[in-house]
Amino acid sequence: MTLGVGVVGAGLMGSHHVHTLASEIAGANVVAVADSDGERAGRAAAEVPGCRSHSAALELVNDPEVQAVLVASPAETHEDFVLACLAAGKPVLCEKPLAATADACLRVIQAETGLGRKLVQVGFMRRFDTAYAEMKRQVDAGAIGPVLLMHCVHRGAATVPSFTSEMMITDAAIHELDLARWMLREEIVAVTVHAPRVSGQAAPGLQDPLVIVLRSASGALVDIEVFGNARYGYDIRGEIVGETGTISLASPAVVSTRQHGEVRVPIASNFGDRFAPAYRTELRMWVEGVCAGEVRGPDSWDGYAASAVAEACLESLEKGGQVQVQLASRPHLYTPTSQLSEMSA
Amino acid sequence: MTLGVGVVGAGLMGSHHVHTLASEIAGANVVAVADSDGERAGRAAAEVPGCRSHSAALELVNDPEVQAVLVASPAETHEDFVLACLAAGKPVLCEKPLAATADACLRVIQAETGLGRKLVQVGFMRRFDTAYAEMKRQVDAGAIGPVLLMHCVHRGAATVPSFTSEMMITDAAIHELDLARWMLREEIVAVTVHAPRVSGQAAPGLQDPLVIVLRSASGALVDIEVFGNARYGYDIRGEIVGETGTISLASPAVVSTRQHGEVRVPIASNFGDRFAPAYRTELRMWVEGVCAGEVRGPDSWDGYAASAVAEACLESLEKGGQVQVQLASRPHLYTPTSQLSEMSA
Amino acid sequence: MTLGVGVVGAGLMGSHHVHTLASEIAGANVVAVADSDGERAGRAAAEVPGCRSHSAALELVNDPEVQAVLVASPAETHEDFVLACLAAGKPVLCEKPLAATADACLRVIQAETGLGRKLVQVGFMRRFDTAYAEMKRQVDAGAIGPVLLMHCVHRGAATVPSFTSEMMITDAAIHELDLARWMLREEIVAVTVHAPRVSGQAAPGLQDPLVIVLRSASGALVDIEVFGNARYGYDIRGEIVGETGTISLASPAVVSTRQHGEVRVPIASNFGDRFAPAYRTELRMWVEGVCAGEVRGPDSWDGYAASAVAEACLESLEKGGQVQVQLASRPHLYTPTSQLSEMSA
Amino acid sequence: MTLGVGVVGAGLMGSHHVHTLASEIAGANVVAVADSDGERAGRAAAEVPGCRSHSAALELVNDPEVQAVLVASPAETHEDFVLACLAAGKPVLCEKPLAATADACLRVIQAETGLGRKLVQVGFMRRFDTAYAEMKRQVDAGAIGPVLLMHCVHRGAATVPSFTSEMMITDAAIHELDLARWMLREEIVAVTVHAPRVSGQAAPGLQDPLVIVLRSASGALVDIEVFGNARYGYDIRGEIVGETGTISLASPAVVSTRQHGEVRVPIASNFGDRFAPAYRTELRMWVEGVCAGEVRGPDSWDGYAASAVAEACLESLEKGGQVQVQLASRPHLYTPTSQLSEMSA
Repeated sequence: MTLGVGVVGAGLMGSHHVHTLASEIAGANVVAVADSDGERAGRAAAEVPGCRSHSAALELVNDPEVQAVLVASPAETHEDFVLACLAAGKPVLCEKPLAATADACLRVIQAETGLGRKLVQVGFMRRFDTAYAEMKRQVDAGAIGPVLLMHCVHRGAATVPSFTSEMMITDAAIHELDLARWMLREEIVAVTVHAPRVSGQAAPGLQDPLVIVLRSASGALVDIEVFGNARYGYDIRGEIVGETGTISLASPAVVSTRQHGEVRVPIASNFGDRFAPAYRTELRMWVEGVCAGEVRGPDSWDGYAASAVAEACLESLEKGGQVQVQLASRPHLYTPTSQLSEMSA
Repeated sequence: MTLGVGVVGAGLMGSHHVHTLASEIAGANVVAVADSDGERAGRAAAEVPGCRSHSAALELVNDPEVQAVLVASPAETHEDFVLACLAAGKPVLCEKPLAATADACLRVIQAETGLGRKLVQVGFMRRFDTAYAEMKRQVDAGAIGPVLLMHCVHRGAATVPSFTSEMMITDAAIHELDLARWMLREEIVAVTVHAPRVSGQAAPGLQDPLVIVLRSASGALVDIEVFGNARYGYDIRGEIVGETGTISLASPAVVSTRQHGEVRVPIASNFGDRFAPAYRTELRMWVEGVCAGEVRGPDSWDGYAASAVAEACLESLEKGGQVQVQLASRPHLYTPTSQLSEMSA
Repeated sequence: MTLGVGVVGAGLMGSHHVHTLASEIAGANVVAVADSDGERAGRAAAEVPGCRSHSAALELVNDPEVQAVLVASPAETHEDFVLACLAAGKPVLCEKPLAATADACLRVIQAETGLGRKLVQVGFMRRFDTAYAEMKRQVDAGAIGPVLLMHCVHRGAATVPSFTSEMMITDAAIHELDLARWMLREEIVAVTVHAPRVSGQAAPGLQDPLVIVLRSASGALVDIEVFGNARYGYDIRGEIVGETGTISLASPAVVSTRQHGEVRVPIASNFGDRFAPAYRTELRMWVEGVCAGEVRGPDSWDGYAASAVAEACLESLEKGGQVQVQLASRPHLYTPTSQLSEMSA
Repeated sequence: MTLGVGVVGAGLMGSHHVHTLASEIAGANVVAVADSDGERAGRAAAEVPGCRSHSAALELVNDPEVQAVLVASPAETHEDFVLACLAAGKPVLCEKPLAATADACLRVIQAETGLGRKLVQVGFMRRFDTAYAEMKRQVDAGAIGPVLLMHCVHRGAATVPSFTSEMMITDAAIHELDLARWMLREEIVAVTVHAPRVSGQAAPGLQDPLVIVLRSASGALVDIEVFGNARYGYDIRGEIVGETGTISLASPAVVSTRQHGEVRVPIASNFGDRFAPAYRTELRMWVEGVCAGEVRGPDSWDGYAASAVAEACLESLEKGGQVQVQLASRPHLYTPTSQLSEMSA
């Protein structure tokens, strides 16, 4: 049996997902692609024999051959498309963010709790990276005792011209905001954003880099360096510090070179290089979960909570100092059931 | 379109392949499994909806729904099953070795050249490991100049009781014998096996470890430590030395731990841990190659040459000193055409 | 010609200095040791042929054979002893802190500026560590462009029972407070201390760990994890982030072991293990500087500035939030002249 | 009390020793320097106040203020100068090799055994490197069980024009020949030299690189890559393999840089960079040993045995195949007594 998947959004991310689903995911079949730019939808669909294209996402959602939907369109469209999937009773994997604002995320949650079952998975694909997953596994197993601190470095080589200081948080650091909650198994209750002087390599007006400090419910601290114009590459690092030891992400490089007086270990040039296997695993596990009638990855609550923390960070960036995170109360539907969606009650 | 694959051999390796094909390879469908132990065949087949089981491999080869065959039965059966596939005109991926002896490999080559087209790929899966593939890519690009030396370490935690000194070469070092030819793009012309004193951790009678020195046609040297009872884990390392630099395999570990006075980086416990992604890539590329009507990986000639070098190693181990490798002349059919099967003429 | 050195304080640090001076520093001769516990002074002096002992430090300072003084007595005595050295016109190397408070440091500065020449070096020995020195050299050479951020980790295995939350800053983090100024070549203008929940491994009442964020005059940020009860060892790490690259301290381990499924790289167990060579270099360069009539390491101004930053950290720890650092104006005498005392004007 | 040291040979190595003794070794005083080029001797002596210069080494040996001699003149002069020291009853540290041939080494041994006490230490300074010393300490402590194998890499950036194929062994690999005996605590009984095709970066006629395989008395194997024109730097690596684990030399780099898409770890450019601390420790321990009336480092027997193994390697390089090492019987005087001279009986 093969799952009929419809992909909404045929940009860089969407067409990458179409390709991965078609070539590397057993059990899934991309049956339709939608994009407001119908021609772009057509080009992406052409890669898969028998795949249809739509210029209207809602058409795709209601296409009877589409059994599950992957939303990879611009952030401001997410709420509508996810709500449409919920209305149609179809499982959906929505790229981060779940919706453009925390309030919009809450509307998704309201719709989903109204259905009484989870259909939405959010595209925090780092949870599917083997390194983060192993870190999580060891932390959960108590290998380093109770967690006290987490250090994160998130660097990119260069930001696109349209990148804003807000996107440093909502687009880049959002991954760490989710990871922090997931690793610590508790909510973030307060944030402080420290803004250093700006790199001369960043576009005018962009506050790059940032140092963000999160505080969890139990008092663990997470510090995050977000640096969009680090020039030298795409570099993701992390260490989690427990009472009896620490766990660090290792270098993902597969070879090193000795030349010109140095040992040289390559660094990824972009997120695609670094996280291609995580995207593939995310899709594979989403397809398996859908076939089993379950959401096995980050859910709507995770999408909402990350957005709420991001909004607190934006306020701290603007006003300075520490800002409290105010979360709605968590519906029973989102009680964690598996490691990949785990969060203590 | 989905390729109907039949798997011969439902032991550890065969059933692992059935599972990988079924769950991680888009475009392939396991339609039949054969094993002389019919019950075992049945258990493996049961994992895949609609999959049949056979107790006779030749029956499977001739099953009309089987479009391509994966041979994972014991080494001494390979020749017969591969020849049957050739007779049936069906593409085959044969686990290493291609056949039990170099002469048997030549009989496969004779049959295949008789057909006039390549159908056989040999399961040297390390060529599909991302680290070796990157090393090869850089060497081929001239990054370190002409190659002079290659150092290989191949350690396992423990050997099974039935493991013999011959298998140290034909079963373990065979991977490096193939890699050396592939990396250097030339044949091995002489070998010397050095036998140190035996580890007290090895079973009585087993010559473990070994140090093998290969000489290539142009005079490059390859040294290989093969150590089956290294106790601490499954550890594969390598460095290739060119005239202007070297390239080394990096650690495949994804995290490290700081605890008890040490930074601790995990080592794989067995070849499955270490090379699972390489097996998956091997299968994916084999399926793609079959669908394209090509052999894109190591071919029968590679299988033969590795076996011929292994036999020279056995002679050196027995008699001491350097032994020349005598190869048949290479049929035109096996002229290398792509990086994964590359070997200079 | 040999420099006659007197050592004040025969505790752990003082007697270690006596030993290093006697066995590893050419050109110095320990001629006297003083300790309020005269017996302890005698034991330390006994290691060096012809060395006298005193129970009064001021006696030692005025001993005519003592040409230079090393102060390694408790922090609250530093001001008096250093002032005595200045009064006697004798060069002094004072273990950190220069004096118990920033105000006391200013009194030393007043006395020294009164003399019109520098005689005081402060024992921030990390500036003499080969790794930090190389990091500094590269930063100064512009290898990574203008500096934006610095990340520091300072972990110890366990704190002594008398260790207080204040000492987390004045005794431990003080090293990083000095390093930050030295690396950035500018003063720290504001600090924020984040206090996470306390480790269950720490003694009751001890705020361990801490995360400190410093802001420099130009807006560079420095974050420091100080963790006194990290259990697993004494672990000092650091990375400095510039506009075009970063520089990190490498592991100081000299060997690694492969055993029990892991590569194991040892971590120092205490600061002596880690920084013994830095202490030796510090002493050698101090002796050379004294013989040349110069202070070539961190001076009284560095001692004062570090203490002033530490006091701001203590205020932030107590009250929360960001605290500005108020520095006196720097006397002309302390204009930096060499890399080891460098600080932009 | 200060030891009066005379240094024979004021070339690169000799003048480096003069400098180290004068500036970093407490308890030693360079009182005389000799060189057949009297002007060069004068320049080296000028660095040390009160130091005399000689143009005749034998004059220096008999200078009454010279209490111990360091021989750093060309290899062919070593025998004469060491014999002169023995005749004068003065302790001597002789740079490797002890003498130009194994037979010449035996003449030194004969003279020394005639005296009935050890006066000669040979300059195998790697035994004083902290990494090798720690490796040795762990091996001796049984940390990895009985030793089976040792892998050595010895690469230099470029050889001087006068460098010959013989010097690949007698000048470069000689360090590993000594280390192998020291680590394994037993003699080398057979050697095989494998000569690969020559690097195009090497001068015409130079057999560079080489792969040498040593067999110890108990059957442990040691493989050594010696590569004089590796271009990229001076790179010394090693791993020793026991029955339950292995120990490897770690990178001596103190920092790493992230830039231009890579993590870059510097490699030493020459042996001075890499082993300066080992030379310093060697000198310090030699001076301490002389003052205590003991030889605490590698002795004449070690110098002889390394030369005998080197001569066997030369024969293997010339004739091919394995060559047995024939050692004289070891006089009782050279029974090992400490870790730094340890060798099983």
